[in-house]
Amino acid sequence: MSDKPKKPQKLKARLPRGLEDRGPAAINATRQMVEKIRAVYERYGFEPVETPAIEYTDALGKFLPDQDRPNEGVFSFQDDDEQWLSLRYDLTAPLARYVAERYGTENLVLPYRSYRFGYVYRNEKPGPGRFRQFMQFDADTIGTAAGGQSSAAADAEMCMMAADTMEALGLPRGSYVVKVNNRKVLDGVRDALGIADDGQWLTVMRAVDKLDRLGIGGVKQLLGEGRKDESGDFTKGAGLKEADIALVASSVEQGDGPIDPRLRDSKIGQQGREELEDIGRLVAASGYGSDRIIIDPSVVRGLEYYTGPVFEVELLLDTKDEKGRPVRFGSVGGGGRYDGLVSRFRGEVVPATGFSIGVSRLQAALTMLGKLDTRPEFGPVVVTVFDRDRVADYQKMVAALREAKIRAELYLGNPRNMGNQLKYADRRNSPCVIIQGSDEKDDPAGPQILLKDLILGAELARLEKDRDEYLQKQGEAQIKVPQAALVDEVRKILDKHGVKWN
Amino acid sequence: MSDKPKKPQKLKARLPRGLEDRGPAAINATRQMVEKIRAVYERYGFEPVETPAIEYTDALGKFLPDQDRPNEGVFSFQDDDEQWLSLRYDLTAPLARYVAERYGTENLVLPYRSYRFGYVYRNEKPGPGRFRQFMQFDADTIGTAAGGQSSAAADAEMCMMAADTMEALGLPRGSYVVKVNNRKVLDGVRDALGIADDGQWLTVMRAVDKLDRLGIGGVKQLLGEGRKDESGDFTKGAGLKEADIALVASSVEQGDGPIDPRLRDSKIGQQGREELEDIGRLVAASGYGSDRIIIDPSVVRGLEYYTGPVFEVELLLDTKDEKGRPVRFGSVGGGGRYDGLVSRFRGEVVPATGFSIGVSRLQAALTMLGKLDTRPEFGPVVVTVFDRDRVADYQKMVAALREAKIRAELYLGNPRNMGNQLKYADRRNSPCVIIQGSDEKDDPAGPQILLKDLILGAELARLEKDRDEYLQKQGEAQIKVPQAALVDEVRKILDKHGVKWN
Repeated sequence: MSDKPKKPQKLKARLPRGLEDRGPAAINATRQMVEKIRAVYERYGFEPVETPAIEYTDALGKFLPDQDRPNEGVFSFQDDDEQWLSLRYDLTAPLARYVAERYGTENLVLPYRSYRFGYVYRNEKPGPGRFRQFMQFDADTIGTAAGGQSSAAADAEMCMMAADTMEALGLPRGSYVVKVNNRKVLDGVRDALGIADDGQWLTVMRAVDKLDRLGIGGVKQLLGEGRKDESGDFTKGAGLKEADIALVASSVEQGDGPIDPRLRDSKIGQQGREELEDIGRLVAASGYGSDRIIIDPSVVRGLEYYTGPVFEVELLLDTKDEKGRPVRFGSVGGGGRYDGLVSRFRGEVVPATGFSIGVSRLQAALTMLGKLDTRPEFGPVVVTVFDRDRVADYQKMVAALREAKIRAELYLGNPRNMGNQLKYADRRNSPCVIIQGSDEKDDPAGPQILLKDLILGAELARLEKDRDEYLQKQGEAQIKVPQAALVDEVRKILDKHGVKWN
Repeated sequence: MSDKPKKPQKLKARLPRGLEDRGPAAINATRQMVEKIRAVYERYGFEPVETPAIEYTDALGKFLPDQDRPNEGVFSFQDDDEQWLSLRYDLTAPLARYVAERYGTENLVLPYRSYRFGYVYRNEKPGPGRFRQFMQFDADTIGTAAGGQSSAAADAEMCMMAADTMEALGLPRGSYVVKVNNRKVLDGVRDALGIADDGQWLTVMRAVDKLDRLGIGGVKQLLGEGRKDESGDFTKGAGLKEADIALVASSVEQGDGPIDPRLRDSKIGQQGREELEDIGRLVAASGYGSDRIIIDPSVVRGLEYYTGPVFEVELLLDTKDEKGRPVRFGSVGGGGRYDGLVSRFRGEVVPATGFSIGVSRLQAALTMLGKLDTRPEFGPVVVTVFDRDRVADYQKMVAALREAKIRAELYLGNPRNMGNQLKYADRRNSPCVIIQGSDEKDDPAGPQILLKDLILGAELARLEKDRDEYLQKQGEAQIKVPQAALVDEVRKILDKHGVKWN
């Protein structure tokens, strides 16, 4: 018997790395979040718009952070006519295409406030909590008056909306902060340093972006010769001189002190600081203090299309994971001004600013913080199959319950074993089970059914001491009622336990 | 001046063919539909599950109808490790992968009833109403007892759920029908004809599939030598003999007459007929008559993975399009039994049946039939910018309204022209507009605001005859109120017109 024929090679059921399946708890949590975010965005006057997941590659452009090779980071493929298509890597680039297509026509009311959510795709190396398909929820304002208060008001509105959204999601004030900086301020630093090489400047920006994680000491190393991390890996630095490192460090560290004289001469830097002051004044006037929105000169944001103010929402709560290790959630959303993105199609500057929530990432954080209701819901009422020749009769009972808007189903597995049917109902978290054998069906008083209250049954299993109570409840946990009263009796059980139906 | 320099080549803002952008009306209509379908599926005891849009190409398999070349119909691309990935072309193949991965583990309760909705992608030639990205909403039952009443009950449940869903979406009984057939019955016809060639059989099936469109005469031509359509194009037929054509025709035409003796000998055909009888009996027992569910021997369904009963939901309503031409909606959903799809991964038969609604297609039909609420909602209250140096003050008013859960926004376009601001508010369908110039701000009685009721204003524009009424309403359409009463006064206007807020 040892040489029985080999089975044919079977196809392996598996997902590509960096992709995930989602069950009822995660799906319901996302729905809750999406509804809450939507309500805030709507209240701010934004309207929904949706673009497809596939776009022309050139229309999306290449603005992903840290992508050195072309198409790196993006899933791309050729169409029948050999044009290159890509899966969207964010929701901003497709919106720019959408707006450019309609700009100046009757189909677009300007300024245009819109929101959208959906999956985006990144062809990157996945990691823990880092997926190649994940959900974003964006809001954008495009086509405001150029410059002046209107632009700053659009940016300020993004920051206030971000703060309101966090609170709508159950994060109390003080447990998050919206941080604002301006790319122009960073450009002013570049001016002062006189860095001509884009590559060197990118290394400086990446170093600054790590302030949260490495502290100012680590950033200084990365601005200079480089830094060796705990594992011994060495990251080459930007190669700045001591005085330049000090200038960058002083410009990105928090503080309301006087500005370094070297920075004062940069016109673009000065403009950036003034825009930040405008935003600060506008949010303060609307009652948003530094407990909600702060200016933070270390915020960089990776995407290359930002041209002015940039925002980032950070969760300040520390918590522990299931192994007791501290978890810092960090950034759960961000955005900024991208006045050049629509103009790629139009040859004129189109002021635009937006904010994006990383729904998948924020959901992980909210779940860990217990801010999402992930209790399993009660399953359906299960009608069991006692007599396999009477499936039609049982199906009819199910139909009657469903007709009355009660969640119900017929047991569709092998009906041989009643124990398996009850186990199934338990695993589905069913509130109650219906049984009808021939005794009940042929009852002299007319057809009866047995109704098993599984919620009470579970309580009963936990009761041991009080014999009287046990016996009384045992009587209630399985009752015989006329079949004609099926719907009413099931309703009574559901109501008794507060199970929602309808 | 005629030789002014050419502008640099600009990027063209356009979507690849067969893809579409969606605005508020379409998005809201989809939300309504999805919620209604979800409620029915939940009531039937189904639970949500979600898989990603990207899968391994081999895991999805190639089951699309009418695809002769490999990968035809599917968007595919290679991963970094050179394995082929594809965008899902339906929601059934990914579910089979999901179930196979968990089959027999604690992570899957069997029988497994689940539902999911989302976009699927087909790399096909697009046409009117035919897109390369469209939404499906599926329900599936996997792992029922093999054969017998349980299988038939699972199929019957799909048909009843399809009927309930159509009614939940506002289609009255009689305006749709769920048609049921069985692939095994068709296989019985093949037995009787003795057709060995798969290609010839496919041609026969495709001919049968066109019964709705061409009538029995056209089908007979396609079963024989072939058929020339109105445009003169010739489609080659299956080349059957006269007697065989008659057999196929009699087997697919409606009717309860006796079965052709040639069909009686096919075991598989007989099994198919018995399964249909079981389904018919089960749905009848639950009160679903032929006004909702019928056996129709002409139903084929294109997908190649079906192994038994197949279902199709057809809308029976004829209506006219905007040009007055009659529109037949035809099939808006379908499904069937696919006992072999999970077994590709497991080497054992896993009974499975499912039903899929073409949400995009059904939405087009419901919209045309006026069954979806696509009235534009009221836009936000617009606070105008009268004095461009006082943006912070206006922003504060907006913040106060939003704080009170009233949809509101600051005008962010160029504030120079008040007329443009009012035009903007009109186009946004705003219920009212707030204005504060220096007269109002410096009012001796304390700061005032002007409140312009745009709904009343629009009524006013339609009034001409009654001068007294006009004058009275004109007074109401723009009122001056203390700034301190801003929120209360706006609420009064919204309530007066029944505009929802909060």
